[in-house]
Amino acid sequence: MKKVAVILSGCGVFDGAEIQEVVLSLLALEQNDAQWQCFAPDIDQHHVIDHRTGEAMNETRNVLTEASRIVRGEILPLTDLNVDHFDALLVPGGFGAAKNLSDFAYNGDPVQVNQEMFAVCQAFARAEKPAGYMCIAPIMIPQIYPKGVKGTIGNEPDIAAAFNRMGGEHIECPVSDYVLDQRHHLLSTPAYMLATSVLDAASGINRMVKKLVELA
Amino acid sequence: MKKVAVILSGCGVFDGAEIQEVVLSLLALEQNDAQWQCFAPDIDQHHVIDHRTGEAMNETRNVLTEASRIVRGEILPLTDLNVDHFDALLVPGGFGAAKNLSDFAYNGDPVQVNQEMFAVCQAFARAEKPAGYMCIAPIMIPQIYPKGVKGTIGNEPDIAAAFNRMGGEHIECPVSDYVLDQRHHLLSTPAYMLATSVLDAASGINRMVKKLVELA
Repeated sequence: MKKVAVILSGCGVFDGAEIQEVVLSLLALEQNDAQWQCFAPDIDQHHVIDHRTGEAMNETRNVLTEASRIVRGEILPLTDLNVDHFDALLVPGGFGAAKNLSDFAYNGDPVQVNQEMFAVCQAFARAEKPAGYMCIAPIMIPQIYPKGVKGTIGNEPDIAAAFNRMGGEHIECPVSDYVLDQRHHLLSTPAYMLATSVLDAASGINRMVKKLVELA
Repeated sequence: MKKVAVILSGCGVFDGAEIQEVVLSLLALEQNDAQWQCFAPDIDQHHVIDHRTGEAMNETRNVLTEASRIVRGEILPLTDLNVDHFDALLVPGGFGAAKNLSDFAYNGDPVQVNQEMFAVCQAFARAEKPAGYMCIAPIMIPQIYPKGVKGTIGNEPDIAAAFNRMGGEHIECPVSDYVLDQRHHLLSTPAYMLATSVLDAASGINRMVKKLVELA
């Protein structure tokens, strides 16, 4: 049975992990007979957003603590992730990937990836173990992989341009599909960068996760 | 296209809605060509639980605000739910159903259902519109439906006994199935009362939601 590490960035699309993407990912992993273990960095969120109003709330929340809500407490700190114990990596999206795992949402490019996150992702890359990034999470790809790495991050020209400026090669891709950079065993899918429904998001996530487990 | 109202009780199994059950429900509704709209009461949560440690946190969170995280902000206050505009009702579980939508988790039986919640659920029952309850949410069923109503709420004898003491008839049911009370157009499934994986939970939820949409 293949073992996949899943890295979460909180709990809620506007300040953490995109919850639907996470659950769809875990479901798809199980459907493909893979085991999963979730991880998250034990750090404060960049901020807390009221998801109804879009306004910042005067609160402090911890990425690991909030992410644990999605998986019924079954989560470990990112520092516990030993790449040797896993066959593949999966990184769901949500603004948390651009606010907590990296600084793209507030500093733009070049993206600074959280140090722990960077070390883990680069270890998967160096071990030539497959990885799948979805939604806005691929914004970290050009910082982790060598120049020329291929990925998709939705159709917004500004974000695609940032991906390219950092040395990546952005490839447009419909929500129901994924981009494979074969050389780097690297997958990406737009998910909620383009999805307009749960089913929409599931279409690309299902295909990418199936491929990820195949490659593992 | 059938329209289904989905009532959430927060965001996280230990103090709110069971997140995976919610996402699996919405996915299943879309797979069965139904439209959904989520609602939640605009009230404070009973408490806030750190899902890693199980300990209460010294915080106050709002059920509606937190629930909105699961659905990217696309949620309405429960007071806005007009039963005439919907064909069916779906109530996912999580302790929020027994802590925020009712008081079962801290007062036991007979269960006091939140007043808004009670009014909405009873309106669906009186209109003979189908309803589906999952996980611990069926603990509210005997207070909403007439004596003798049939439902399932997992295999814990104490909880099943409480269901029966309030006038319901508890029926054991595997996680992959649901119980139908035909007379009351009422469905229930154990979900995470019994599930040990996302796939497990999905098995019963998928079947129940398919039937719910058929009955609608």
